[in-house]
Amino acid sequence: MRQIDALKSPRFTQVSTFARLPLCAKDEEIKAAFLGIPFDDATTYRPGARFGPMGIRQGSRLLRPYNQFLDTYPFDKLNACDLGDVNIVPGYIEDTMNVIQNNLYEIISAKDMVPFIAGGDHSITLPILRAIYRKYGKVNIVHFDSHYDFWDSYWGKKYTHGTWLRRAIEESLIKNAVQAGIRASTFSKEDLKDKERLGVSSFTIRDLKNNIDAVIKEINSLTGPTYISIDIDVVDPAFAPGTGTPEVGGLTSFEIIEIVRRLRFDKLVGFDVVEVSPPYDVSEITSMLAANIIYEGMSVLSLNL
Amino acid sequence: MRQIDALKSPRFTQVSTFARLPLCAKDEEIKAAFLGIPFDDATTYRPGARFGPMGIRQGSRLLRPYNQFLDTYPFDKLNACDLGDVNIVPGYIEDTMNVIQNNLYEIISAKDMVPFIAGGDHSITLPILRAIYRKYGKVNIVHFDSHYDFWDSYWGKKYTHGTWLRRAIEESLIKNAVQAGIRASTFSKEDLKDKERLGVSSFTIRDLKNNIDAVIKEINSLTGPTYISIDIDVVDPAFAPGTGTPEVGGLTSFEIIEIVRRLRFDKLVGFDVVEVSPPYDVSEITSMLAANIIYEGMSVLSLNL
Amino acid sequence: MRQIDALKSPRFTQVSTFARLPLCAKDEEIKAAFLGIPFDDATTYRPGARFGPMGIRQGSRLLRPYNQFLDTYPFDKLNACDLGDVNIVPGYIEDTMNVIQNNLYEIISAKDMVPFIAGGDHSITLPILRAIYRKYGKVNIVHFDSHYDFWDSYWGKKYTHGTWLRRAIEESLIKNAVQAGIRASTFSKEDLKDKERLGVSSFTIRDLKNNIDAVIKEINSLTGPTYISIDIDVVDPAFAPGTGTPEVGGLTSFEIIEIVRRLRFDKLVGFDVVEVSPPYDVSEITSMLAANIIYEGMSVLSLNL
Amino acid sequence: MRQIDALKSPRFTQVSTFARLPLCAKDEEIKAAFLGIPFDDATTYRPGARFGPMGIRQGSRLLRPYNQFLDTYPFDKLNACDLGDVNIVPGYIEDTMNVIQNNLYEIISAKDMVPFIAGGDHSITLPILRAIYRKYGKVNIVHFDSHYDFWDSYWGKKYTHGTWLRRAIEESLIKNAVQAGIRASTFSKEDLKDKERLGVSSFTIRDLKNNIDAVIKEINSLTGPTYISIDIDVVDPAFAPGTGTPEVGGLTSFEIIEIVRRLRFDKLVGFDVVEVSPPYDVSEITSMLAANIIYEGMSVLSLNL
Amino acid sequence: MRQIDALKSPRFTQVSTFARLPLCAKDEEIKAAFLGIPFDDATTYRPGARFGPMGIRQGSRLLRPYNQFLDTYPFDKLNACDLGDVNIVPGYIEDTMNVIQNNLYEIISAKDMVPFIAGGDHSITLPILRAIYRKYGKVNIVHFDSHYDFWDSYWGKKYTHGTWLRRAIEESLIKNAVQAGIRASTFSKEDLKDKERLGVSSFTIRDLKNNIDAVIKEINSLTGPTYISIDIDVVDPAFAPGTGTPEVGGLTSFEIIEIVRRLRFDKLVGFDVVEVSPPYDVSEITSMLAANIIYEGMSVLSLNL
Amino acid sequence: MRQIDALKSPRFTQVSTFARLPLCAKDEEIKAAFLGIPFDDATTYRPGARFGPMGIRQGSRLLRPYNQFLDTYPFDKLNACDLGDVNIVPGYIEDTMNVIQNNLYEIISAKDMVPFIAGGDHSITLPILRAIYRKYGKVNIVHFDSHYDFWDSYWGKKYTHGTWLRRAIEESLIKNAVQAGIRASTFSKEDLKDKERLGVSSFTIRDLKNNIDAVIKEINSLTGPTYISIDIDVVDPAFAPGTGTPEVGGLTSFEIIEIVRRLRFDKLVGFDVVEVSPPYDVSEITSMLAANIIYEGMSVLSLNL
Repeated sequence: MRQIDALKSPRFTQVSTFARLPLCAKDEEIKAAFLGIPFDDATTYRPGARFGPMGIRQGSRLLRPYNQFLDTYPFDKLNACDLGDVNIVPGYIEDTMNVIQNNLYEIISAKDMVPFIAGGDHSITLPILRAIYRKYGKVNIVHFDSHYDFWDSYWGKKYTHGTWLRRAIEESLIKNAVQAGIRASTFSKEDLKDKERLGVSSFTIRDLKNNIDAVIKEINSLTGPTYISIDIDVVDPAFAPGTGTPEVGGLTSFEIIEIVRRLRFDKLVGFDVVEVSPPYDVSEITSMLAANIIYEGMSVLSLNL
Repeated sequence: MRQIDALKSPRFTQVSTFARLPLCAKDEEIKAAFLGIPFDDATTYRPGARFGPMGIRQGSRLLRPYNQFLDTYPFDKLNACDLGDVNIVPGYIEDTMNVIQNNLYEIISAKDMVPFIAGGDHSITLPILRAIYRKYGKVNIVHFDSHYDFWDSYWGKKYTHGTWLRRAIEESLIKNAVQAGIRASTFSKEDLKDKERLGVSSFTIRDLKNNIDAVIKEINSLTGPTYISIDIDVVDPAFAPGTGTPEVGGLTSFEIIEIVRRLRFDKLVGFDVVEVSPPYDVSEITSMLAANIIYEGMSVLSLNL
Repeated sequence: MRQIDALKSPRFTQVSTFARLPLCAKDEEIKAAFLGIPFDDATTYRPGARFGPMGIRQGSRLLRPYNQFLDTYPFDKLNACDLGDVNIVPGYIEDTMNVIQNNLYEIISAKDMVPFIAGGDHSITLPILRAIYRKYGKVNIVHFDSHYDFWDSYWGKKYTHGTWLRRAIEESLIKNAVQAGIRASTFSKEDLKDKERLGVSSFTIRDLKNNIDAVIKEINSLTGPTYISIDIDVVDPAFAPGTGTPEVGGLTSFEIIEIVRRLRFDKLVGFDVVEVSPPYDVSEITSMLAANIIYEGMSVLSLNL
Repeated sequence: MRQIDALKSPRFTQVSTFARLPLCAKDEEIKAAFLGIPFDDATTYRPGARFGPMGIRQGSRLLRPYNQFLDTYPFDKLNACDLGDVNIVPGYIEDTMNVIQNNLYEIISAKDMVPFIAGGDHSITLPILRAIYRKYGKVNIVHFDSHYDFWDSYWGKKYTHGTWLRRAIEESLIKNAVQAGIRASTFSKEDLKDKERLGVSSFTIRDLKNNIDAVIKEINSLTGPTYISIDIDVVDPAFAPGTGTPEVGGLTSFEIIEIVRRLRFDKLVGFDVVEVSPPYDVSEITSMLAANIIYEGMSVLSLNL
Repeated sequence: MRQIDALKSPRFTQVSTFARLPLCAKDEEIKAAFLGIPFDDATTYRPGARFGPMGIRQGSRLLRPYNQFLDTYPFDKLNACDLGDVNIVPGYIEDTMNVIQNNLYEIISAKDMVPFIAGGDHSITLPILRAIYRKYGKVNIVHFDSHYDFWDSYWGKKYTHGTWLRRAIEESLIKNAVQAGIRASTFSKEDLKDKERLGVSSFTIRDLKNNIDAVIKEINSLTGPTYISIDIDVVDPAFAPGTGTPEVGGLTSFEIIEIVRRLRFDKLVGFDVVEVSPPYDVSEITSMLAANIIYEGMSVLSLNL
Repeated sequence: MRQIDALKSPRFTQVSTFARLPLCAKDEEIKAAFLGIPFDDATTYRPGARFGPMGIRQGSRLLRPYNQFLDTYPFDKLNACDLGDVNIVPGYIEDTMNVIQNNLYEIISAKDMVPFIAGGDHSITLPILRAIYRKYGKVNIVHFDSHYDFWDSYWGKKYTHGTWLRRAIEESLIKNAVQAGIRASTFSKEDLKDKERLGVSSFTIRDLKNNIDAVIKEINSLTGPTYISIDIDVVDPAFAPGTGTPEVGGLTSFEIIEIVRRLRFDKLVGFDVVEVSPPYDVSEITSMLAANIIYEGMSVLSLNL
């Protein structure tokens, strides 16, 4: 009987569990699992997303078995469980990226299951995509965010929470990229040209607010393995104050929930909700929203079963 | 019975009563009064609604005499006042229910007035309905909430904030029940069948967001004595973080205010706003919203005078 | 005059100025500047707007050079900078009004530039308008607020944050007044008649929510010098909790941002955002919103250049 | 005049008065009463003390009838009650000072009672002392604070929360002045000479921490009418974060409570606790401390009866 | 793979774990374990102690294996683990007391181990003592608190967080009772006589502050089975704001930690820390303190091994 | 180089620099300057210290020119100013260490001045010491902390906020090391042996509380260049909640302030206050304390001039 060694595993990792599900057992058949990746050292402004998995687990305590809007019992159908957290390396982005990539690949190569990942900042999506690529080859990415996230570098560094999408495209991990919710001011007009150069299909918040059907139609027309990445800052800070680089003028919680409910994929291979920073949250509303987004994502996946 | 004049005495001065109205005097003719029921031991998650009446009184300090949207002076027309609080019994649900029922019956049998009640958790609505029934017979209930509240029991107990509506129907206190705003995940698909079995006309948040006119039309077609019960969690946690079992994806404050303004009844016999939990509120926004909802409710009532 | 480059120096470093712009230098050609007026003793309820300029500077750290919605680089085009704060006199409204009027007149008479002012409570707009009048003669005022702000007096005093618009009209400073977003309960039905008497074109929140195009059309048809004054409480307290007299049922952050983006003037002569009270804010969301409103205002101005 | 019985009515119920005492009735014989003076426009840094009386009433809900440390029932012995608040004039210091002076004189000239006053910022003590002087002639002042409060002026103005003591001495209202707890950095070494010039007996926090007996002995040797003024910032911000100009390194709550308990006067004529600013408080700890200080002050007074 | 059924087990119960220890396994030899009892419906003022076990587990994440002040590895020596929470019945005090008593007796009768219990409000100590009595017969109780907790009843009810000690004495569960830290105002002078009548050796906060050695000497002279109960409100609200009925003028965190470290018993049979209410906590300081108190208690116990 | 005069310009106005001092000008003779190092990616638990310099600047607004306890005008004597922040590299510890080392060396080699540094987490002290060493050779370090900070590694990494002191000793940068305030539980009993092996003179919090004179005597007997490093968590979380790895049972603010005031050195070459994390602060009390500690440090330095 020993404590977990804090010299090996950072203190802000590991359990209570998502939706009060059991921790995953080795020999269990599962179709989906919750996984925490509590890394936040690649954020460019407010930190705290390291407490994201902890907060989302806490915020998931009210989730119940039946989703009446999609007529499904997601946890039952998916035999869902909680995988705990990846033991990241604080202060070392590139080491952490290796740990994430290896851990996740190990998980998804051992079982045919879909990870539902709670960040952590958005830099984690790059090593996730590398692991996904290793198993599935190129995937579509569906990306909800208020920022483009395809900047080239910050402070002379290639790996931050604002550069992962460019890296993923440069590394040829991506088949099609669709992003929606963009609204932040940008560093330059070149950013708009970059989305053409990089081949990203990008919808602003205005596009999304004014014609949500068109956006969903484009997303739902994607074929083949698809990964969904939701930066919680696509939602307005009134609904999601607990985040690192909030941008006003975003989605409501009703809108993001309804969007996720309406997504349909022939092959969903992964899903993340990132940038939830509990130290900036109030009364757990951001954590609860993130937990519900994951719940709706699991529900959508369960419809194929 | 007049508010303290904010043009003479600043709003942050003097002892708190609802809208800075006087406490009710015994021999006064009144048509409506504010009543606090600070009981929260029947909540299934976050407590604190015991401070609801206190918070709502505080949050009502900015209310002014004239409602320009309904062209009425509600306090003047109703000769409104503040009745103080019911002396509930913490930790004893069933004793408290008796106290509430008896106190409220005493109040409404003595005078022909309409109580505007601030909870407290939603369990208080059952004894309120019993008192209402004793005076008026069966009533219609108009229920705004994110939860069905007709579960059978929790922890082997029949009386919680999630079971009151089933109890009220079983006790034959209800004529017609209309509920709107439902969106929480549920324990089972049976919950949907229960709404048929119990004869509850139930609108989800989607129904409400997509066709508010239809919902209001159905409510306004009710005839006879009608009671309104508003669980503040029908509103989104961005607008009402101060509550016990928040559910994301709810109404905006503009929507709930507009809904209440549009309600019309031939006989409104009572009105409650429950589940306001100030310890989880931020900058009093939930309390202010609840105070405004009561103000709009009083305004609607005053239109009949 | 350039922002500190966030791609070289992280956003949480260095001393706070608006948008990390430099402080204005005496001999610089500028077309717009940020100015703080941290006076809050004329508020009728919650104070704290004295920390408004400080909060808005802090909340502006994420602003980037390019506005993709208006296709402009506002700071570059305007050669924008930060003028610091006016040294107001706490507890002395009328002395403060003189200081503001004189300081601002000195600034705008020395250079042909447009001040973007962060309050402070709304009482500051009166001395601002006096200074503006001295340079430009009568101006149009475009006023977003949840309150009429043309009451005659409070506590026997003519100068508060709720009386400035009446004073400005009485002093013949105003050509046309258009206000929008009104929703607070009022002291009397006379308030509605006053808007006719005073010649204010007034739109309620309902008008704004239901027909935003009509409101913008009326505003954009104004000709000649125009001043914009935005009380942050026109926005709902969910999006802007940090304010002194919040009123539920207001605009979303998306709505106010879109409104400002759509305004067009032949001659914009000043712009303020008032009533931001950081002690009541949560996670800086109100400050960030106010900073973005000023950014959009600068962007609109820059379109004429 | 009795408190609402907390053994019958839970403490979180009913309208807030100080210690749940009744509001004072005109024809009642009382020996002490609580009075709120919610003015905060003379503060030089963080406002919010206008909510001090409200906060202290709320923080007093746990006070019970018997003080075991002084073996007294203060409320019973004093027939204590709550006088409500003075209707101050926000933004007008000098008008407010007149209102305070007149109101208080009216109260203490009508009845032979001792006011226990909750501020508001420290500027209110000057008009209080003028009213006291008018009734009793020169009084001793016992002043606990982290600041000297005898500066000459701020921003060219004579009346602020940092100048009241100099004004009171200049106006010849004071017999002897003893102050303790001083620790803030000062504007100049002249401040130390001023205390000699003004004849103030001044103890630093070090004096108080190192030899509390000496300080109490000096205070208790005062004869004739004596007024006590306690700026809550004499207490460390860990114990009293809710204040306007906090200074680290102060008293603990145990120390201030014990000091008050040990004070003895042949004639106590008034008592105030000022600078409690609830917007900066956490979990009401400052308000609760202030309420307890007033309770101990009333207890000391009751010993003479 | 199923969620824990929220209809049987309240949502605010169950794990992350104390000090990141493993959950207890059935067949493991253990000498001490952490147990949560998240019941708070017997509180007379602020609720929230139902989140106490959750908060304390969270606040225990920084605890490390070696206690240098007592030169011991408590977790190793005790083979400590986390037993999870008792499934209490919200809103039903007496049912809950039965559940607690039965659960705890089952635990301590099966194994010779010492429970370290996190409340919950102080009412839980009564059923704990009943279970302890059933195994060990009469025990000494060492009780740190700011309140006597031997009142007879509240609101006509015998079971609240302020009556448990009287009940325990009446039920003859107690051998010797020593309490320390008492300072709250009381309902009557009779309370002091009651301590004589009930045979409680009671030290005030003054006794404790002025002569801590005497108090510890008396406690350490107790012989036979001894139970320790620490109401976190014995600590000053500056150090422990997260509690239900705070009383100013209490212990510092250094004092309570040092006191616990100095306790020595020939037979410690149980230990609780109660009244930690996370909704009122700031930055987890109360939870961290409670976790450290339990850690020191385990350390003291481990010295006998 | 003078502070903005708070008697002319209220303290809540103007852009934040430390103590409202001017930014340092290149050609100015200065003897001390404030420098921010906002790096927090080496923390092992709660982040946020990147906002430390910003928070401390804000918390320093109340500092006035004259220190009456040391009879000195520190800013005047030192001609003090604010150097802004070092542009660290988020997420890259080792790059950041190089940037810090080079920047600081550049500063102190150009002028004979003493840097007063605000962190950032404690990892920054290692590159600071390297720069100091390069100028002065080996220095004494005086280290106040609740943790030893001489662990060997975390997660396989040598550079964290808990390993800097061991690294500094291994790199032979240190002449004598004295640390005080130690109290956290540790990973192993080996930690106590390490302090012998590493030659660190270490005082626990008990040593400090029980015999402060002895500790100060040992520190003040150091000769030659000396560097002071104060981890704010040496102070109790009641006084300094805004930090990353708080440990209960620490110093009061009065104690730390008095300790700093009593330090005397023949050659003070640098001073830091680290681990201030504003997201976890309440009402700026931690930031204010840190600002005051720096103020006292500057005052002590000024005594030699």
